[in-house]
Amino acid sequence: MEKTNVAIVGLGTVGAGVARLLLDHGDRTARHAGRTLWLKKAVVRDLNKDRDVDLPEGVLTDSIQDVIDDPDIHVVAQLMGGLEPARSVMLELMEAGKDIVTANKALLAEHGAELFTRAQQLGRSIAFEAAVAGGIPIVANISQCLSANQILSLEGILNGTSNFIVSQMDEFGSDYGSVVAEAQRLGYAEADPAMDVDGTDAAQKLAILSHLAFGASVDWSEIPRVGIDGLDPDDLRYAKELGYRIKLLAVANLAEDGLELSVAPTLVRVGTPLAEVRDAFNAIRVQGDAVGPVFYHGLGAGQMPTASAVVADLIDTAVGRTQITFRTLRYFSNDQPPRVLLRDAETLVGRYYLRLPAANHPGTLAAIANVLSRHGISIASVIQHESSDGDRQRDPVPLVIMTHEATEGAASQATQEIESLSSVSGPVVRLRVKG
Amino acid sequence: MEKTNVAIVGLGTVGAGVARLLLDHGDRTARHAGRTLWLKKAVVRDLNKDRDVDLPEGVLTDSIQDVIDDPDIHVVAQLMGGLEPARSVMLELMEAGKDIVTANKALLAEHGAELFTRAQQLGRSIAFEAAVAGGIPIVANISQCLSANQILSLEGILNGTSNFIVSQMDEFGSDYGSVVAEAQRLGYAEADPAMDVDGTDAAQKLAILSHLAFGASVDWSEIPRVGIDGLDPDDLRYAKELGYRIKLLAVANLAEDGLELSVAPTLVRVGTPLAEVRDAFNAIRVQGDAVGPVFYHGLGAGQMPTASAVVADLIDTAVGRTQITFRTLRYFSNDQPPRVLLRDAETLVGRYYLRLPAANHPGTLAAIANVLSRHGISIASVIQHESSDGDRQRDPVPLVIMTHEATEGAASQATQEIESLSSVSGPVVRLRVKG
Repeated sequence: MEKTNVAIVGLGTVGAGVARLLLDHGDRTARHAGRTLWLKKAVVRDLNKDRDVDLPEGVLTDSIQDVIDDPDIHVVAQLMGGLEPARSVMLELMEAGKDIVTANKALLAEHGAELFTRAQQLGRSIAFEAAVAGGIPIVANISQCLSANQILSLEGILNGTSNFIVSQMDEFGSDYGSVVAEAQRLGYAEADPAMDVDGTDAAQKLAILSHLAFGASVDWSEIPRVGIDGLDPDDLRYAKELGYRIKLLAVANLAEDGLELSVAPTLVRVGTPLAEVRDAFNAIRVQGDAVGPVFYHGLGAGQMPTASAVVADLIDTAVGRTQITFRTLRYFSNDQPPRVLLRDAETLVGRYYLRLPAANHPGTLAAIANVLSRHGISIASVIQHESSDGDRQRDPVPLVIMTHEATEGAASQATQEIESLSSVSGPVVRLRVKG
Repeated sequence: MEKTNVAIVGLGTVGAGVARLLLDHGDRTARHAGRTLWLKKAVVRDLNKDRDVDLPEGVLTDSIQDVIDDPDIHVVAQLMGGLEPARSVMLELMEAGKDIVTANKALLAEHGAELFTRAQQLGRSIAFEAAVAGGIPIVANISQCLSANQILSLEGILNGTSNFIVSQMDEFGSDYGSVVAEAQRLGYAEADPAMDVDGTDAAQKLAILSHLAFGASVDWSEIPRVGIDGLDPDDLRYAKELGYRIKLLAVANLAEDGLELSVAPTLVRVGTPLAEVRDAFNAIRVQGDAVGPVFYHGLGAGQMPTASAVVADLIDTAVGRTQITFRTLRYFSNDQPPRVLLRDAETLVGRYYLRLPAANHPGTLAAIANVLSRHGISIASVIQHESSDGDRQRDPVPLVIMTHEATEGAASQATQEIESLSSVSGPVVRLRVKG
């Protein structure tokens, strides 16, 4: 049987998983590739570190040059994290004639255009299924399986850490801080979870998916985004009372005059598939104009789900499918003008959930309703509970308002005005509502 | 821009949808294929029939020979239904050098080995995404996206007609016959819905998926199958009371000593994704050893979802991806020995729901429990209601029993023995319970 020599650069959690699939399950990869995928080199920084995998003699090296200089290595799983030296190493590997498989979403979000353009010039390919949604093969599905469609919208839970945290807060009524600590203990959150919980990671993934689905050239940092850091358990409770769960939702919606993108904690109606996505799972709902809605659900991170995506890409590259796709679609190339432009966030239309501390005296609700009305925002429902301990003097009282559809601009201005009312004694919590 | 000439054979519902995607959305297919997909011929039986699509001058023909004899047509969407002449036409087209895209699951289920072996010999390819689960790209997902995995199990709702009927019965408490009539009126069921409702269609799809996922060579008619024809609304009601819905579930499960396959109405716990699949939707849960569970949900039939799958295959074939996959995987070829064998249905283990008409006198439950116990089947729960109208003399009374795990053989024997008890006055309804 023919073989394709493969190298792994970076033997962290995912790298070790990839090595295990290649070493322990060669029959399986051979069956799907019609050839052996032979792990020839695995490049690490520290040769003495304990690894999660047993490598055959001679595979481990701390020199990337061993890969660059070996003309028999054709495909490299480039699994270093961060931007540098990951970017330079990827460029060097491509210059040396290697096709690349990567899981580095931040690198693609920051330097996609440069790397992909260079790859096109060099006749090389870059596969990146593992960069978005881990085990859910959303890249191949959008690029190939749904290629007969104009994608109309994407709605996704793309950050497993955030979803784990929100699910735990929802289920146990715990506060944000203690759930983050628990998530770190269980390995669902990193020591510094900022990129996960502040919406950065989801925005980077959404930028990549928007490029695949809509031909948009989006700088992820331009996507309006709100994270789940600082989410208040009270809001999860009120949402539940209203028949919703709160999820960190990444949304891309093709409107007539451009693409609407956002990442934000969003109230999603209980019983709909996205509301039922628990723990560290990811899910994506794609709406195509021919196929209708297609919903995907799976593990968005973790060693073996991500390794599964990397190895599928290695197989696709070894047999030549990746190269065809790469040549045809020219993703992230500088020579491809964007097919759609981003819409101004102020004009996005949606429903909103507002919670605010309202003075417990006559006229408060009227004043607030007045502000909303002036901005053309109508109220769908209101919750104001009598205090459970019968304390009629509690002041301020939490007031929850669900609106009908309004533009982001109107909602934002109305919120500011409500905050400046004398009968409102603190900031307004404002969340999006799906549907 | 280069072009690939395409023909459609059979301009029924799906064929017309494919023609529309090719004619009205050439920009989109060109973008994904890097070339124009040019609809050169559409072959029909009756030139004078009204069509759901406007074809340019010269495209419509009633002669298959126009396609066979045209060396510039390279890819054919072969969308004739039934076994003959669909089989002969496909062979002729391949002999003439055409690559094939088909949606004909029955043809693959019956003649897959012959057609695929011949295609290999001729250096041609057959793509068949549209043959299973319509708009859900499950063929590509199993064959390519999850190729790093040993698939451990598949659980699917693969027949939209059955799911529509069961969902309606569940929601409105209607009886089978009236819902079938309604489904026919709405176009969800054919005039003769036998293949859909008796489990044949689901078994044929399961046979194809089992080949892709497990390398099994399964004659679909060997798959133990029960349809939803004759499902009693009472059982849907009792299932709901127990916290379940009834779905026509197609299951493939890789056990140590072989592959377990079945198609049967099955109690699925409310709140799990498969239980929430409504109307004519399809869904498939794939469990891979690396990726974990991946869940797919979408429209399993209908003009445009199926056309979406056909056109994705046309694009994959025009760019050469299909040919690589076809050469590599050698699906359905006679030279590929099956990797797993079917397990004896008698040894399948599962939980069961039993409903039976029991005599309303002392000792009945004891006699039934006795039979179950002798077969090693323990009881998980029992429902026997007082009659709602206070009629203590009602006799027989419906008795519902949920069992713990038992083999199919034991459950089947116990059922027969229960039916022969003097205190049981009619047949036992026996349904599978998932999980």
